[in-house]
Amino acid sequence: MTRVLILGSGFAGLNAAKVFAGKKGVETIIIDQKNYHLFQPLLYQVASAALSPAEIAVPIRNIFSKYNNIKAIQGKVHKINAETKSVLTNVGEFRYDYLIMACGARHFYFGNEAWEENAPGLKTIEQAIEIRRRVLTAFENAETENDSHKKAKLLTFVIVGAGSTGVELAGALAELSRFTFAEDFRNIDPKRTRIILIEAGPRILPHFSEKLSLHANRHLENLGVQVLTFRKVTKIDADGVSIGDERIEAATVLWAAGIQASSLNRQLKGELDSMGRIVVEPDMSLKHFPDIFVAGDQAHFSHQTGKPLHGIAPVALQQGRFIAKNILKELEHKPREKFHYIDKGHLATLGRNNAVLEIGRLKLSGFWAWMIWLFVHIYYLIGFKNKFVVLLQWAYSYLTYQKGARLIVNHDWRFYKNDKLNNHQQID
Amino acid sequence: MTRVLILGSGFAGLNAAKVFAGKKGVETIIIDQKNYHLFQPLLYQVASAALSPAEIAVPIRNIFSKYNNIKAIQGKVHKINAETKSVLTNVGEFRYDYLIMACGARHFYFGNEAWEENAPGLKTIEQAIEIRRRVLTAFENAETENDSHKKAKLLTFVIVGAGSTGVELAGALAELSRFTFAEDFRNIDPKRTRIILIEAGPRILPHFSEKLSLHANRHLENLGVQVLTFRKVTKIDADGVSIGDERIEAATVLWAAGIQASSLNRQLKGELDSMGRIVVEPDMSLKHFPDIFVAGDQAHFSHQTGKPLHGIAPVALQQGRFIAKNILKELEHKPREKFHYIDKGHLATLGRNNAVLEIGRLKLSGFWAWMIWLFVHIYYLIGFKNKFVVLLQWAYSYLTYQKGARLIVNHDWRFYKNDKLNNHQQID
Repeated sequence: MTRVLILGSGFAGLNAAKVFAGKKGVETIIIDQKNYHLFQPLLYQVASAALSPAEIAVPIRNIFSKYNNIKAIQGKVHKINAETKSVLTNVGEFRYDYLIMACGARHFYFGNEAWEENAPGLKTIEQAIEIRRRVLTAFENAETENDSHKKAKLLTFVIVGAGSTGVELAGALAELSRFTFAEDFRNIDPKRTRIILIEAGPRILPHFSEKLSLHANRHLENLGVQVLTFRKVTKIDADGVSIGDERIEAATVLWAAGIQASSLNRQLKGELDSMGRIVVEPDMSLKHFPDIFVAGDQAHFSHQTGKPLHGIAPVALQQGRFIAKNILKELEHKPREKFHYIDKGHLATLGRNNAVLEIGRLKLSGFWAWMIWLFVHIYYLIGFKNKFVVLLQWAYSYLTYQKGARLIVNHDWRFYKNDKLNNHQQID
Repeated sequence: MTRVLILGSGFAGLNAAKVFAGKKGVETIIIDQKNYHLFQPLLYQVASAALSPAEIAVPIRNIFSKYNNIKAIQGKVHKINAETKSVLTNVGEFRYDYLIMACGARHFYFGNEAWEENAPGLKTIEQAIEIRRRVLTAFENAETENDSHKKAKLLTFVIVGAGSTGVELAGALAELSRFTFAEDFRNIDPKRTRIILIEAGPRILPHFSEKLSLHANRHLENLGVQVLTFRKVTKIDADGVSIGDERIEAATVLWAAGIQASSLNRQLKGELDSMGRIVVEPDMSLKHFPDIFVAGDQAHFSHQTGKPLHGIAPVALQQGRFIAKNILKELEHKPREKFHYIDKGHLATLGRNNAVLEIGRLKLSGFWAWMIWLFVHIYYLIGFKNKFVVLLQWAYSYLTYQKGARLIVNHDWRFYKNDKLNNHQQID
């Protein structure tokens, strides 16, 4: 029995495991800190109160319940022993014949990790709920604030970084304040909300062509988003952000600027790039450890075009699938193949019924790009029921401008705290 | 302009506000700690991973967005000044002409508040998510546990209190372990899960007739729930519960035993009963303050039958509506009426396709009671879209035995903690 260990259940890990499902002679163990696969491209919709977490996440063990050769383990990796071929976790040690590392990336503050408290990133469900809580709470607090300066600050939202996540968040917040909240408040006009998108580079959506980037810029500005390019944030605190001498007072700052590959890469012998990704061979394995493969956001693969592939879902998905097939080939004593990415293009939404789409030389923007975005996301969304519910939520949002998940959920579930004063002041 | 202040947006507060919606000459302010109305009868379905929070909760300001005479304020009440007719909150002071108090009840440990840490109650969305997290985590940990004693403890679930909430939780957990999880684990047999329902009194569902209580008891036992009556829990700690000398080792203990009305009642002159509810006049007002009304779980109303009305949704709903109408009558210089409860009966589900139902002398159990339960809950569920999505989720669960929201969501959203050791051990 060959044992394949998969770390991480994102697009790469999940799609590798799917290849092994039901295959005799291969035992597959997926280890992840979470108990679910997360459909990350839609995470910004949880942060902007359009979808519930469970609609874009499916339990891993549920996906593979029918395949006895696939085990799902919720655990945290402590150490990878490449020499002895085993992985140490908080729930025990697992030896492997093949290791597939697909732990993705986390948000990164370029050495300013203290900024996190005042500028959450958007990589996990917990962070999406926290962003939702902050955004909705800002509007609630603005409604009861009498000081006009403080009110303006509460209604200023800054998003740092104008890649897909930043742009999609900006579009969703604009929509929320312009349409969803239009009639819900009595003491504020949500349409006066300032949404500021800050980008250090020369233009938003830098991985798209200049034409589409310009379209996106214009569309966001039409939605009321203020786009600031060539601006590098130098400070973030509880009251806003600084860009050199320039100061923007804002109660809510969101971080969509930096990405850093899993720190597990540092445990392995191999070259890392500036984003912490480990350089892989043409077959996605590591130079010094041919039985270790790395996929998705954790890997730096530049054999195809000379440039590293982007950290997007289709790349991770294809790599995961490719690695699993290569392992099966090797088990049949066939030679390994080289990875070749089939370009599925880039997509980004710009609020309701507008998007940009680029596949090779094809460039599309506007309503039809949005329709394709809709179709692609529903198609790839895991789970029959999720597709249905998400479609229903979107149809509802589209027709009514309402969002389905406008809840402010707190961190603490306890009622009886040590703080007795707090206790009897509470409305239960 | 008459100002009516409503504290709390449960069934009582919400239905009072609905009466005032669009009424000229009346300004209504609803103050609640949360930004949403929660459909509490379905909260156990969030705790048991069947529904998402947003499916049973709707933003208050969204419900009343079209009615300019209704304001929603998210705030915490500090003090009620009945003499000066004003309420002090964390977001300012609000004077009133009429005050409707509908702050409900919280779970209560009869002086053992330290038990909360190891036995969460089920009154809020935060608690439901915490219970879900504990239940799902226990199964995940059992899967990787090799010690058979520890494994058995992880697969033992104790529910203290066999009113509707306790019974519904027990049924849902039984269903989860027997059906939903049946094929999902490799190292444990979820069907071996022990679910123990502990009741201090002589029988479960004490507010139902003996016949239905017996039916429920038998049905739960068929589902594999162990029902222990006449047992008073004397200790709860991290390893389980004690009932005098008897000891049950359990990793998960849930609390559904005690209820205590809002502590705001203690700020008011008036008689409180053993559950902290304030005794109200036949018109639901307070003896010493005729311009203060109390409704729902916060009120003790016993003028109709000599016994206080139960803390169930139909009572709260009717009282809220009644109070609002009485205020409108008084504004038209008509005399106030006395509250008369129209019995809508009791309902409780016993897992999939079984329920008990009692309206006056009508007693029903089994599939048809469950169908009525289904219909009633969908009918009263707030919001067109929620009804649709919940129905879809239920249909899906019913056909596939799957649950829609099996996510383990953590408390902390931060990645960069002070704990550096923790940091680089993490799979991102």
